[in-house]
Amino acid sequence: MPVYKAPIEDFAFLFNHVLKIQDHKHLKGFDELTPDLLEAVLEGAGKLVEEEFFPLNRHGDEEGCRLEDNHVYVPSGFAEAYGKYCEGGWASLTADECDGGQALPHMIGGAVMEMLSSANFSLSLFPLLSHSAYMALKAHASEDIRNAYLPKMASGQWTGTMHLTEPHAGTDLALLRTKAKPLDDGSYAIEGTKIFITCGEHELAENIIHLVLARLPDAPEGVRGISLFVVPKFMVNEDGSLGDRNQVFCASLEKKMGIHGSPTCVMNLDGAKGFLVGAPHQGLKSMFTMMNAARLFVGIQGLSQAEVAYQNAHAYACDRLQGRGPRGAVDEHSAADPIIVHPDVRRMLLTQKSQIEGGRALALFALMQMDLAHAADNQEEREEADDLTAFLTPVVKAHLSDIGSEGANLAVQCFGGHGFVREWGVEQFVRDTRICQIYEGTNGVQAMDLVGRKMNLHDGRLPRRFFDKITQSLTKMEAGPAEEFVAPLHAGVTKLQDALAQLATMDLADRGAAAYPAMQAVGTLSIAWMWAEMAHASTNTNMAKIPTARFYFQQILPKLDYLCQIIGHGGQVIETHPIGHVA
Amino acid sequence: MPVYKAPIEDFAFLFNHVLKIQDHKHLKGFDELTPDLLEAVLEGAGKLVEEEFFPLNRHGDEEGCRLEDNHVYVPSGFAEAYGKYCEGGWASLTADECDGGQALPHMIGGAVMEMLSSANFSLSLFPLLSHSAYMALKAHASEDIRNAYLPKMASGQWTGTMHLTEPHAGTDLALLRTKAKPLDDGSYAIEGTKIFITCGEHELAENIIHLVLARLPDAPEGVRGISLFVVPKFMVNEDGSLGDRNQVFCASLEKKMGIHGSPTCVMNLDGAKGFLVGAPHQGLKSMFTMMNAARLFVGIQGLSQAEVAYQNAHAYACDRLQGRGPRGAVDEHSAADPIIVHPDVRRMLLTQKSQIEGGRALALFALMQMDLAHAADNQEEREEADDLTAFLTPVVKAHLSDIGSEGANLAVQCFGGHGFVREWGVEQFVRDTRICQIYEGTNGVQAMDLVGRKMNLHDGRLPRRFFDKITQSLTKMEAGPAEEFVAPLHAGVTKLQDALAQLATMDLADRGAAAYPAMQAVGTLSIAWMWAEMAHASTNTNMAKIPTARFYFQQILPKLDYLCQIIGHGGQVIETHPIGHVA
Repeated sequence: MPVYKAPIEDFAFLFNHVLKIQDHKHLKGFDELTPDLLEAVLEGAGKLVEEEFFPLNRHGDEEGCRLEDNHVYVPSGFAEAYGKYCEGGWASLTADECDGGQALPHMIGGAVMEMLSSANFSLSLFPLLSHSAYMALKAHASEDIRNAYLPKMASGQWTGTMHLTEPHAGTDLALLRTKAKPLDDGSYAIEGTKIFITCGEHELAENIIHLVLARLPDAPEGVRGISLFVVPKFMVNEDGSLGDRNQVFCASLEKKMGIHGSPTCVMNLDGAKGFLVGAPHQGLKSMFTMMNAARLFVGIQGLSQAEVAYQNAHAYACDRLQGRGPRGAVDEHSAADPIIVHPDVRRMLLTQKSQIEGGRALALFALMQMDLAHAADNQEEREEADDLTAFLTPVVKAHLSDIGSEGANLAVQCFGGHGFVREWGVEQFVRDTRICQIYEGTNGVQAMDLVGRKMNLHDGRLPRRFFDKITQSLTKMEAGPAEEFVAPLHAGVTKLQDALAQLATMDLADRGAAAYPAMQAVGTLSIAWMWAEMAHASTNTNMAKIPTARFYFQQILPKLDYLCQIIGHGGQVIETHPIGHVA
Repeated sequence: MPVYKAPIEDFAFLFNHVLKIQDHKHLKGFDELTPDLLEAVLEGAGKLVEEEFFPLNRHGDEEGCRLEDNHVYVPSGFAEAYGKYCEGGWASLTADECDGGQALPHMIGGAVMEMLSSANFSLSLFPLLSHSAYMALKAHASEDIRNAYLPKMASGQWTGTMHLTEPHAGTDLALLRTKAKPLDDGSYAIEGTKIFITCGEHELAENIIHLVLARLPDAPEGVRGISLFVVPKFMVNEDGSLGDRNQVFCASLEKKMGIHGSPTCVMNLDGAKGFLVGAPHQGLKSMFTMMNAARLFVGIQGLSQAEVAYQNAHAYACDRLQGRGPRGAVDEHSAADPIIVHPDVRRMLLTQKSQIEGGRALALFALMQMDLAHAADNQEEREEADDLTAFLTPVVKAHLSDIGSEGANLAVQCFGGHGFVREWGVEQFVRDTRICQIYEGTNGVQAMDLVGRKMNLHDGRLPRRFFDKITQSLTKMEAGPAEEFVAPLHAGVTKLQDALAQLATMDLADRGAAAYPAMQAVGTLSIAWMWAEMAHASTNTNMAKIPTARFYFQQILPKLDYLCQIIGHGGQVIETHPIGHVA
């Protein structure tokens, strides 16, 4: 049986000692977040996921979802667990107070989401998508729609979805064809087929609020002609009660590599009634408001699978007796030693641990910047925080989801043959986490977002903010307990700055070829920075962070040399290769 | 629907131009291998796998195996395809002539095995294990047993298995408990439970010949007390007809991440009748004779999944229209360009292609050395070939199976969301190939075999042979068509030699920590060497190898710097980390 224990001690350490949230307690959202409340939230979430979510995880994978007569049935037990999640007020954690929410910062939502997702990735997708839909409506919908939908979405009574992809239009949304025809009552009739719709249909909630991208009749071609609509599964009457079933149905469920407990739907909109959200033709922009938060959360999802996989690998490595340590028998009374004595097993476990804990710090740092971008005192601080969020979002999404797959696979490797069989439950983490590198924009798309867009915005202000922030850390750490990391981190900064300066002079073809290693390089250095910060912050706590920081600096950070080297090579060899079409 | 076309042109190029098998045509096994026969073998195998094996691959994954009343049923269609494989004489390709085989070199068997495995990994496991069992019996069994079993195993009429692992004894075979009690007739009664037995029970063949490791009553403890037994599913009468059902039964089938079409059995030996193979207590040695060949084949299996996954990713990338190239529209008449125009997609495809083709060259080179270790003219040449085989075996097993997983995952990534759903068939390659990093000794065990054993044998003679061989290549390539690769390959040799020299001074704990990066470093450099060789050999052919060689040297080989750097760090940080038990 797989194991999972919510890492609440690590979260508390990060919030209290690394991110130092108490320094911001005068800000909205941070103000109510006393150490006691933080502890209560983390412990409550931990208890919920350990007791209600995790026991259903393997079962959900085995049972899966099924479609019958337009109804989608999710694994048994999911509805009850989701009910407890809503009853406990977890759905409304970060929702606005005027919608009945608790208005806590998103970084707290991120910590809770990691735990939900580690415990049961499939089940956690229902609230995650709802949260994204809530945010998009909050930012762009009319007051009527906000009043009618948001309180029930905040409470979890209704869930939400995002309808973007069509069979021929995934990354390239310019190609999308779904049509919206204006009706006399000011609403629209939506016609089209959407695919890969996570939690598009189910019986967990009373209603499902679909956010749908479609084209108005007079829409210009391309991405400037896409509008956003809200399409409820059941129409909402003026008194808030549910009315007619809308013409939006699940046509089929995808069979997938993983996340079997989450229905991935092909959705037919057959003249479904919808309401415009935001201005006509501005739909993509509205959708992207929410996408940035969603992308940070996907990075956390990837991490969450590495975390639960690591916990199982570590437990197994302490338990499984096989062979002897490199210096002879560790336990002479036993016929063999636990495999954690083997250097290569330790190397695998520490690779997982160092990337997970460092990645967690980075994700929460990015989410905190997202919070500060709204809550900070003055425009200057808000702008800095917004820049850091924008710069780190593609890195957190892509690098942490890569770490998710790498970590889950290393966990399987620690189990040997027992990792490949389903009985121990670790192979599920590999299958489940794989999607994180793909959805919400593939990791290649994230890398292009970083080097094609974020690097150049405002004349390169975003990466400057990032390096400035590290430089501030370096100054702080000199002659402190993490001093040993100052020189290598500083060297890493110089190396990466040089590589990115080179990148900035390249044309789009070269930059495209160097994008992925550049994303990895920023991710690799960012996590080193977080390790230095954690090492520095750990000295007055009972967290033993320094040994793992040393591991990361010695074993993982040197990858930066390799990455910077290939960034410098650009793309000529790649572009001119006769592998297929070239410009 | 997934696609697969056997890469026979690449095999022919490797055999004829890189390995230059005609230079060895005076040797046994090579003598009959005329260019015409080689072409006929490659084309025949290609036709068999494309027409009979590949169409059953997805179906085998979906249907899987089931156990009912001691019978194991494999996916429908497998028996017919296996029948055609045997009828065509493919089972006996490398078997001895006295057993009715064709006595072709193992490198030819390796090429055929890659194709079988690309087309249908699960189905290919039946012959692979039979081949291993054949080799072990050939080398160690008594004449009676050889006469009674080998011709039918060579023809494929009977299949074979290897029974090593027990629930508590995987990597550490010293712990195994299965007992063999001598009977009056000179045979033994075998008692125990074995797990992870690939193709341990099925109805594809008339009989199954199990090779079982067990302990005699007077056996010393540990690995020096293990004997090898042959245990047939049906007893074999003196006239060759089948007799009683032996007491060896499948107790259950594992549910696995992949290779669903191959039954992975828990086997109960309940007083099963067995016959000693080789000397008492020497069983592990006998098993290892065969294990080296098996390990090379596992590397090829990993590669085979990357190959079929790559073919699908490449076809999809040429077909899927999404977005525009970095220099604007490539096809202005279409609403979007094929995704192969995107530099990051090309980077992924070339990463796959360069590692697959380079890995294939390396695997066939190693298999050719295995052939030459027996067939070469004189003792000196045989010793050299044997040294190279021994040195490269763990590298081919581990590095190529790592490449298998990396390649299959990159193929999924090229498909985006369509890679995660089962419909397109690429996620199966990820699930199937994952076992290659685990079985026949995990990749961590391979790395320890390389640095803990192979590096030090005969005072370091094996790595010296390896570097000498590369140096010979360098001399040959100077001022030739592959001259551009001479300097970087030479630099790589120096770097790796320095790192391995450092490794040689370390104690076992440090060496254990550095083993995996050392294995990767040897693998990375070996493939660069193969690319230089292929580039050199390609100039008078129609194979365009130079562009891919450039990609490998520019994008992949620089990883060597990183790997050598962490080899140098040894294991102190890893050993002293408070993650768990230490010595």
